[in-house]
Amino acid sequence: MDIKTAIMSRRSVRKFIEKDVEKEKLEELAKAAIWAPTGGNAQPWDFIIVSDKEKLRQLKAVSPGLLGMPPSLIAVCSNKQANVEKMGAIGDVLAVMDCSMASQNIMLRALDLELGTCAIRSFNQSAVGEILKTPEGVEPELLITVGYPKQDTKAPSRKEDVIRWEEY
Amino acid sequence: MDIKTAIMSRRSVRKFIEKDVEKEKLEELAKAAIWAPTGGNAQPWDFIIVSDKEKLRQLKAVSPGLLGMPPSLIAVCSNKQANVEKMGAIGDVLAVMDCSMASQNIMLRALDLELGTCAIRSFNQSAVGEILKTPEGVEPELLITVGYPKQDTKAPSRKEDVIRWEEY
Repeated sequence: MDIKTAIMSRRSVRKFIEKDVEKEKLEELAKAAIWAPTGGNAQPWDFIIVSDKEKLRQLKAVSPGLLGMPPSLIAVCSNKQANVEKMGAIGDVLAVMDCSMASQNIMLRALDLELGTCAIRSFNQSAVGEILKTPEGVEPELLITVGYPKQDTKAPSRKEDVIRWEEY
Repeated sequence: MDIKTAIMSRRSVRKFIEKDVEKEKLEELAKAAIWAPTGGNAQPWDFIIVSDKEKLRQLKAVSPGLLGMPPSLIAVCSNKQANVEKMGAIGDVLAVMDCSMASQNIMLRALDLELGTCAIRSFNQSAVGEILKTPEGVEPELLITVGYPKQDTKAPSRKEDVIRWEEY
């Protein structure tokens, strides 16, 4: 799929058919993530791919934003602490930015593989960290659900008056 | 360009030839930005396209991260205050995430148009806000330089051990 079509046609998918996502495809998504831009080439991230049904059930229990039951998800985790040590105070927000751009790579690449995704932030960060056994300094930032879409999702509207020239 | 190639071949470009970027192309980039995912469809962003040479000179003077002189840039600004009012405390980080994903759309779409980009965070936020006349509550998060690349940029290395299965 060409890049313009991918960008314009990506929608948040919240309903999936009951079909597991192939391991190879999930790995492809994570491999797209690692090519996101990253301040100072720090790569302050980890990508935890979850397909285990029991683990998904546990994650759902602490994630109000996780609707339905996706066949898999990728937990995008930041290494804020290490990034601050490396880059100074700005490393904190840079880690969030890098992880967000990596997430967008995942969501765009998914379209190529006929997969749907939804980025979720509404979850208990420390509970998700415990379930995924993340060490101190590694924080789950986003859960990206991944599965085969059940139906086409209607495009939400977009504001156009946010594009400005030379100044606000 | 197909999405996988775009993701894998995007590099931060810091040297540009002396050629202005067409207005239509800059607008295409901003139009790609607005289709990024956004929590609660809040769209907490503004995209200010700058090509005016005097304004670029002013921005460069307060942006240590802005090397050389790009022919244009897009200032990606968050509306954190409005997002917090709409979504609660989480609106703050969500605004940064949404703006970062929108930035990644800009950088990927640029490849299609034979443009190079570089995302910069190292700048004085309040000084940039003053130059761009942003109102209170609208904060410049990233400056994305845009131009025709002077040379191919070598791929930096990427860590592969950041991809994990089921848990950290």
